[in-house]
Amino acid sequence: MTRVLITGFAPFGGERVNPSWQAASLVAAEPPAGLAVTAAELPCVFGESLDALRDAIRADNPDLVLCLGQAGGRPGVTVERVGINVDDARIPDNAGGQPIDEPVVPDGPAAYFSTLPVKACVAAMREAGVPAAVSNTAGTFVCNHVAYGLGHLIATEFPHLRGGFAHVPWAPEQVPDGTAPALPPATVAHGLRALLAAAARTPAEQDLKVTEGATH
Amino acid sequence: MTRVLITGFAPFGGERVNPSWQAASLVAAEPPAGLAVTAAELPCVFGESLDALRDAIRADNPDLVLCLGQAGGRPGVTVERVGINVDDARIPDNAGGQPIDEPVVPDGPAAYFSTLPVKACVAAMREAGVPAAVSNTAGTFVCNHVAYGLGHLIATEFPHLRGGFAHVPWAPEQVPDGTAPALPPATVAHGLRALLAAAARTPAEQDLKVTEGATH
Amino acid sequence: MTRVLITGFAPFGGERVNPSWQAASLVAAEPPAGLAVTAAELPCVFGESLDALRDAIRADNPDLVLCLGQAGGRPGVTVERVGINVDDARIPDNAGGQPIDEPVVPDGPAAYFSTLPVKACVAAMREAGVPAAVSNTAGTFVCNHVAYGLGHLIATEFPHLRGGFAHVPWAPEQVPDGTAPALPPATVAHGLRALLAAAARTPAEQDLKVTEGATH
Amino acid sequence: MTRVLITGFAPFGGERVNPSWQAASLVAAEPPAGLAVTAAELPCVFGESLDALRDAIRADNPDLVLCLGQAGGRPGVTVERVGINVDDARIPDNAGGQPIDEPVVPDGPAAYFSTLPVKACVAAMREAGVPAAVSNTAGTFVCNHVAYGLGHLIATEFPHLRGGFAHVPWAPEQVPDGTAPALPPATVAHGLRALLAAAARTPAEQDLKVTEGATH
Repeated sequence: MTRVLITGFAPFGGERVNPSWQAASLVAAEPPAGLAVTAAELPCVFGESLDALRDAIRADNPDLVLCLGQAGGRPGVTVERVGINVDDARIPDNAGGQPIDEPVVPDGPAAYFSTLPVKACVAAMREAGVPAAVSNTAGTFVCNHVAYGLGHLIATEFPHLRGGFAHVPWAPEQVPDGTAPALPPATVAHGLRALLAAAARTPAEQDLKVTEGATH
Repeated sequence: MTRVLITGFAPFGGERVNPSWQAASLVAAEPPAGLAVTAAELPCVFGESLDALRDAIRADNPDLVLCLGQAGGRPGVTVERVGINVDDARIPDNAGGQPIDEPVVPDGPAAYFSTLPVKACVAAMREAGVPAAVSNTAGTFVCNHVAYGLGHLIATEFPHLRGGFAHVPWAPEQVPDGTAPALPPATVAHGLRALLAAAARTPAEQDLKVTEGATH
Repeated sequence: MTRVLITGFAPFGGERVNPSWQAASLVAAEPPAGLAVTAAELPCVFGESLDALRDAIRADNPDLVLCLGQAGGRPGVTVERVGINVDDARIPDNAGGQPIDEPVVPDGPAAYFSTLPVKACVAAMREAGVPAAVSNTAGTFVCNHVAYGLGHLIATEFPHLRGGFAHVPWAPEQVPDGTAPALPPATVAHGLRALLAAAARTPAEQDLKVTEGATH
Repeated sequence: MTRVLITGFAPFGGERVNPSWQAASLVAAEPPAGLAVTAAELPCVFGESLDALRDAIRADNPDLVLCLGQAGGRPGVTVERVGINVDDARIPDNAGGQPIDEPVVPDGPAAYFSTLPVKACVAAMREAGVPAAVSNTAGTFVCNHVAYGLGHLIATEFPHLRGGFAHVPWAPEQVPDGTAPALPPATVAHGLRALLAAAARTPAEQDLKVTEGATH
């Protein structure tokens, strides 16, 4: 039985809900066959989020970690290819922190690539009928902070672990006026189950050799 | 019991499905309380679509008609405010017809406003958690042809009838790469049930007096 | 020499400039060959805008009228096909007026089509290297109010006149952060000169028979 | 006199022009005060593009390098914060090469941050009235290949050099139907002159401390 830790964030930026935590909870409540899934809600706070992630990894001792965040405006679930070593907060985090061009990890490498098979994860979600794509930027807020930080935790403290980050769209209740894309958390969770099953059976080095690149 | 006729279109433009017919079928299969709902699939063909609509109205003798169409790229369900008297087909219809700047009804009025309470319909869908908005253009393809044609049928042949047009987003299966918005037909159907209930209890003249305007 | 009246609006919605008036002024300052162009700035106010338009038409006695408005978010110059008989103001106008679902002209027809050769106008702008398209909605704010109102003035007071409405994108200075499209007023003016030349030589009935339709 | 090398790409993806080369040529033809600017057109080919860049740097011995690429769909000029060590080609390059998930530099670091003062560059362009923003992804095609490769050249062969990458929008002639943003190359060049002047006078370590972050 593959042990999976899935995380989502607390609401931020004035929102009442965070679809990443909604979806993570649904997946943990109804995990895909063969996977034991534990969900942890991370504070949307620079620093504290990574402390909470480290604690959850220690507590759960998972084989696989999937961290989720909200990407309002993106139509599908986007699996992040890379986290970069910079915090540049357009808005304050939930503790009022607003670092500008600070490293996530001083003297850390410029970036960490995901150790999930990002292409296989995307293909599995599409197969399950859920819109998905590879993303080449997790931004520079707490999501990227965790995407990079997870890479650093794996590289420096949990070498047996594999993991990565994915963004989920707004939930319909967050865009009542229909001016931006949204997907119901239940639809997202359905896709995430397929993602996790693919990640569990596919080492990153054996990811699908299909292009999911972007010209810019 | 209010009798409702709901229509959707056959797939067009190379698509395998049409989410308007998917949603219409779901609503007819599970109508909202107090409404008897019949669904009819209209051909995506200039002319024939309106003949089929007239036949369905005659056969069903509804109190209320809601015609649906696919609006790929729109994030929410959009209730059309108006249909205009022009056919200008960017792509051929399903019979190869491609009229350019032809009137839907020669010598007909320039446009017909919907006789649905468009604001109440939008508010009801939002209340039900489904992204929705008023739209001021149904385009100039078969959707607008039916939006205008329904207005003309009501004005000239079925004066007791009320009705209008709404566009639904792509279904997730139509945008697997997540590059455009999509909503599951089940989510759309949930919103349409709320729309129909609002339309049934609200004459157009008593529509909500809230702005849903657009600066352009 | 064809006499042309070109109008733009005063800034609205908190903007310091209105690119429609910027472009209109440039065209009047450097009109296309064979056209005498007068520019008039209309107040962005329901009612007053049409009074000012009527006064300008009486004063200038043009053969052709082109009314311009700002459409922030649209990438190109969009020639409006139709104006509809409804005022539905998402924001107050510059006199604080905010009509909701009020007719532009009580008991007036549901809509007026432009009497410009919209397809020839678009083709001419593209030929001049300026992005352009036909639009099927001028919105429901003061722009549509003038698009419809101009049609009504032509139909009821100035039968010899031809005219229509076009929207222009934001100017670059209005979107410094590059999150929405913009075109320099000089580029827009270059396109408008081509538009006016095409409109002057092409009666609406002899418009190009090319599709510029929209599926929605 | 600060020596600047500015590069743009040959057209690709079926385009007749590449606005990056158009803008680079305009800047070289009319450089900002105090800067001597040489322009070089790079082949849109993995590998060859970096060979050509190395040759141009050796030939010109610049103090500053600005590499430009086309980002169709982006409204403004976007200064890239980072290049990542992966080639993932959605379309073949101009020599038919289409690497999938190959490193730009085997065993190279995961990413290189730009050594331009990206915030000062963006602020300078906005000051000059040209829409601009910081971007956190140069994609995974030849643009990112050069963005990363330039970082590697600076880190390993030209330590005195500073440089980075910026994307420019489509030129108007590339989107005649107005369905996507565009800026005239002359407008872009005007912005790039301001960018280069800011880059020349501002070491990266003394970049503006303003947020230009993205939540995702």
